[in-house]
Amino acid sequence: MEELKKYVSVKDEDRFYHQGAVELLVFNFLLILTILTIWLFKNHRFRFLHETGGAMLYGLVMGLIIRYATKASDVESGTVYECEKLTSGPSTLLINITNQVYEYQYKRDISHHNVNGHQGNAMLQKMTFDPSIFFNILLPPIIFHAGYSLKKVCVSFLHYKMLHTLSECLSYLSPDRLIMYGFVKAMVHIGQLKGWEFHFTDCLFFGSLMSATDPVTVLAIFHELHVDTDLYTLLFGESVLNDAVAIVLTYSISIYSPKENPNAFDAAALFQSVGNFLGIFAGSFAMGSSYAVVTALISFTHLTKFTKLCEFPMLETGLFFLLSWSAFLSAEAAGLTGIVAVLFCGVTQAHYTYNNLSPDSKMRTKQLFEFMNFLAENVIFCYMGLALFTFQNHIFNPLFIFGAFVAVFVARACNIYPLSFLLNLGRKQKIPRNFQHMMMFSGLRGAIAFALAIRDTESQPKQMMFTTALLVVFFTVWVFGGGTTPMLTWLQIRVGVDPDEDLKAEATSQSASNLDKNTTKAESAWLFRIWYGFDHKYLKPILTHTGPPLTTTLPEWCNPVARLLTSPSAYGDQLKDDDTDYIINNDELTENYESSAHIPVQDRTGSTQATGKEDIHEGDLGLGGYKLQLEHTVGQPQMNSLA
Amino acid sequence: MEELKKYVSVKDEDRFYHQGAVELLVFNFLLILTILTIWLFKNHRFRFLHETGGAMLYGLVMGLIIRYATKASDVESGTVYECEKLTSGPSTLLINITNQVYEYQYKRDISHHNVNGHQGNAMLQKMTFDPSIFFNILLPPIIFHAGYSLKKVCVSFLHYKMLHTLSECLSYLSPDRLIMYGFVKAMVHIGQLKGWEFHFTDCLFFGSLMSATDPVTVLAIFHELHVDTDLYTLLFGESVLNDAVAIVLTYSISIYSPKENPNAFDAAALFQSVGNFLGIFAGSFAMGSSYAVVTALISFTHLTKFTKLCEFPMLETGLFFLLSWSAFLSAEAAGLTGIVAVLFCGVTQAHYTYNNLSPDSKMRTKQLFEFMNFLAENVIFCYMGLALFTFQNHIFNPLFIFGAFVAVFVARACNIYPLSFLLNLGRKQKIPRNFQHMMMFSGLRGAIAFALAIRDTESQPKQMMFTTALLVVFFTVWVFGGGTTPMLTWLQIRVGVDPDEDLKAEATSQSASNLDKNTTKAESAWLFRIWYGFDHKYLKPILTHTGPPLTTTLPEWCNPVARLLTSPSAYGDQLKDDDTDYIINNDELTENYESSAHIPVQDRTGSTQATGKEDIHEGDLGLGGYKLQLEHTVGQPQMNSLA
Repeated sequence: MEELKKYVSVKDEDRFYHQGAVELLVFNFLLILTILTIWLFKNHRFRFLHETGGAMLYGLVMGLIIRYATKASDVESGTVYECEKLTSGPSTLLINITNQVYEYQYKRDISHHNVNGHQGNAMLQKMTFDPSIFFNILLPPIIFHAGYSLKKVCVSFLHYKMLHTLSECLSYLSPDRLIMYGFVKAMVHIGQLKGWEFHFTDCLFFGSLMSATDPVTVLAIFHELHVDTDLYTLLFGESVLNDAVAIVLTYSISIYSPKENPNAFDAAALFQSVGNFLGIFAGSFAMGSSYAVVTALISFTHLTKFTKLCEFPMLETGLFFLLSWSAFLSAEAAGLTGIVAVLFCGVTQAHYTYNNLSPDSKMRTKQLFEFMNFLAENVIFCYMGLALFTFQNHIFNPLFIFGAFVAVFVARACNIYPLSFLLNLGRKQKIPRNFQHMMMFSGLRGAIAFALAIRDTESQPKQMMFTTALLVVFFTVWVFGGGTTPMLTWLQIRVGVDPDEDLKAEATSQSASNLDKNTTKAESAWLFRIWYGFDHKYLKPILTHTGPPLTTTLPEWCNPVARLLTSPSAYGDQLKDDDTDYIINNDELTENYESSAHIPVQDRTGSTQATGKEDIHEGDLGLGGYKLQLEHTVGQPQMNSLA
Repeated sequence: MEELKKYVSVKDEDRFYHQGAVELLVFNFLLILTILTIWLFKNHRFRFLHETGGAMLYGLVMGLIIRYATKASDVESGTVYECEKLTSGPSTLLINITNQVYEYQYKRDISHHNVNGHQGNAMLQKMTFDPSIFFNILLPPIIFHAGYSLKKVCVSFLHYKMLHTLSECLSYLSPDRLIMYGFVKAMVHIGQLKGWEFHFTDCLFFGSLMSATDPVTVLAIFHELHVDTDLYTLLFGESVLNDAVAIVLTYSISIYSPKENPNAFDAAALFQSVGNFLGIFAGSFAMGSSYAVVTALISFTHLTKFTKLCEFPMLETGLFFLLSWSAFLSAEAAGLTGIVAVLFCGVTQAHYTYNNLSPDSKMRTKQLFEFMNFLAENVIFCYMGLALFTFQNHIFNPLFIFGAFVAVFVARACNIYPLSFLLNLGRKQKIPRNFQHMMMFSGLRGAIAFALAIRDTESQPKQMMFTTALLVVFFTVWVFGGGTTPMLTWLQIRVGVDPDEDLKAEATSQSASNLDKNTTKAESAWLFRIWYGFDHKYLKPILTHTGPPLTTTLPEWCNPVARLLTSPSAYGDQLKDDDTDYIINNDELTENYESSAHIPVQDRTGSTQATGKEDIHEGDLGLGGYKLQLEHTVGQPQMNSLA
């Protein structure tokens, strides 16, 4: 009794005084170590271990320590109690133990096979924190940042080019998963997993979650080494869209799962699943975009006599942050996928809202999201390291792991090479062999694959998938991430490319062959042209301070409405300097190609400050010309002949 | 069975897809509403409801909706189960229900009187999130920001003056709690609470938690209206130190609690408690400062041939953020009080580390902490509003609540007026009557009182205290916070004071009477003088890029060490412009008062750029002179006579 009292009092004190502090401190410590290591590495130009790899390594070591240096502190570890009175698990359980009522909160269902001695190790349990924290708190900043800088990539490299690349990347998406599925299916047929309920949908599930690539390590190195912008954009666009599709697909599959006969191939169910997929994707897209549009409208508001929000940078930043996060949370709450929503929210925010922010807020939001991205990423990678030892229900199945590794690589190879071949047929500027190899090599798996895998670890197949996914992440981040620099050298990919210098050097030497290029490009991209025309003429004036006044773009009879909606500043200096720096005006696709494509490209520095509408068009053409020149000069100077 | 399956599957889906998202969304929604409201108010110059009050109001409404619009979703609400096999509550409970093992996590002990119908309302439960989230995540940024800007207040107003004020504020601290205790004790004697175990320590506990004031609302209004800087500093310093003491005291009392006979007055235990108090305070102080010193050293590092950390602003910001947070967490984990640690960490960071940051990082960290402070504050106030309806075990005792209100006001009155009288005896620049009234009026209770109260709500007295504390917070924030502007007008306190203008206007007119003032001030503050001499001569050169080179301040025989420790930049331009702006060099207290007090005060703008050591002293004196002039001209122009 004495001992019991002591035990309870210790627990009480623990609860009262430093609950949670120790666990957070462990993460803080790991992150500090990681940052110091990165600093050290940066000093020595050491690129074999990226920060994410470092974070993972430290997490691994810490997990090892926690696993084997702490003991199961609880007396009652791994004992299962019977309770006949209950028929289902309530979310809160009140239990009367020696005249003291204890409140217990439902955590999860657990299979009998999962009950083991580590169940009671409080430290291990606390370290493996709730997957919902991943989804709701750590992932959104990363994805939002990706969306937000996807736009920046567009701008700082090639705007039109990027869109083209994105449409190409879309075609990279589908086969990956099917091949993964084929491999997993083959694994099942070998008979290794006969004992379990390993369904058709489980294979699909694993296939789709493993197809979410995470190029963050590779892109960081590319950025540092100034690798060819062409390759950068290709890889970035591919992986971001790939992730979005992987997430929605995983989700649709998990909805498809609880069917009558999960092993059979049910055509109706498949169509329903495809419908789900499309619906969820569209819904998430709409949700994300609409939040961004709301933000843009609020930050715009020239309708009322209000002081502009941008005069209160703190409120502006706060609103921006909260609305973007809400896009994620609303989508999740509505049964859509928040990650897709927040991705497109980021893109839309960068396209519209960013223009309305005060210079101070532009800086603030950029730095804030950068910082959150940095922290969240490192926390996730630390946690992955930790999870290898602290997660309680790993199932290591060597054959499945081997199969998964093979599947991952073969699927990527079957994806990259044939598709590049197909794309090269229709592409004037071919994707060179070494780029293809590099893209093949950059198929890292990271945070998203992990997050998708940890969401559901109830059944044995899911646990095995989780363990396997974790190992694939470890391997790819360390081996591929570490091997990026040698691989770049070995493949003789151009590094040290300064996009601005390229721009300048090539602009003066090759202004002759633009015309034909321009027209062909403009023809091939008619869908984008329509969209950009609409965007430039109507959306930008309504949502931002840039673009032509609505009174000039809308028909005559809309004039009263147009005047109401147009920002007073739109009549004057529509194109401010900071706007041209960031959000490039897309006239080149809509008006100028046809009307003024014969005007020789102006020297950008030599052009006068654009103030009126006429001037803007000239300025735009200058930019457009540059970009189209860069388009076929970067990486492939020999491709300048006509198609 | 069918229904059960459906029920389980709904729960499963809920767990898988939007666990946590809805709750976070509610908070996001409340915060967005709050921000929009603030914006609206700022447009209309409406100051009767501060953002914190608004956040609380919205929280309240939302709490009301959640409470009465949602039903107890759980079948098993409020049923207590017996389990004879257990002897104590394990941290994890595995229960076998209809052949499915459920894992339950220990949440809390619960008294029989707390078991009620709302126990099973999952929504209510999720909304009342873990108090440890407050302590470990939401409070640190607020307190750190206070510490970080305490320094800024020092600088932008009066450095020396502030220190003087702080030492005065220290004397404000003690009586508050004792008077509170007296009142609570009287309440107990009335007999209202006879049935419960309402201990001596409980009274002390309540007294000390209620003495933590939160001036954030009032200070925000002061700042907006440019209220007299003197009053601002006085109130800010008082409340920050008050909070620190309140927290440590609450903690020491809760350690003192589990004694043999809690009602008796035990002298030994009291002394032990005082010892605890001092030990914890000193320990927390040391913990916080040492983390800041480590940060300063890392961001300094001129010892190695490393690239300076400040060339990687992201790493720098990350390290700054993580180390400051670690100060909090380490203190909590070590059984000290994190809030005190993080407060002094903030002060020390601003004093040393801030100087070593790159201009980019200075901006980044400042904005980051500002933003986190803003968000955390509004989340806490929203939550307070929510808690009034969603918290499950309120005990409203009208008499106790009335007594607490009386106690709070009488205690503050007994604190402010007599102490101001005493301080005025020794003060040349008296605290005027209207300032005293305003300070009396500004005794708002806020986040810290709430956080201290919610930490422990097990016993009935603690629950009653929590409810009462919550009501006091509501009342003071709405009534006092809203009444600040009318009160300022009524008390005829000067608003619209621009410290810089004051500085300029007075500097030219009143440079004659400085000498005597300087010497008296310097004498009265000998302790600060010693500290600042030490700080300036040794600590600043070791920890920052500013201050004189160590080779000149250390004795001859230390030269080799001194040369090793001195930053190369210290020999050249010790006082950069941005440094003088922020961290004022404190020579005025150490060297110049004695050696060169007779030199007429230079015009600041007219002085030449300081490059050598001699020049710096002149520059410092210029600043020092201004400050001492401002000292007795702001607010009290009639007080210029000698003592």
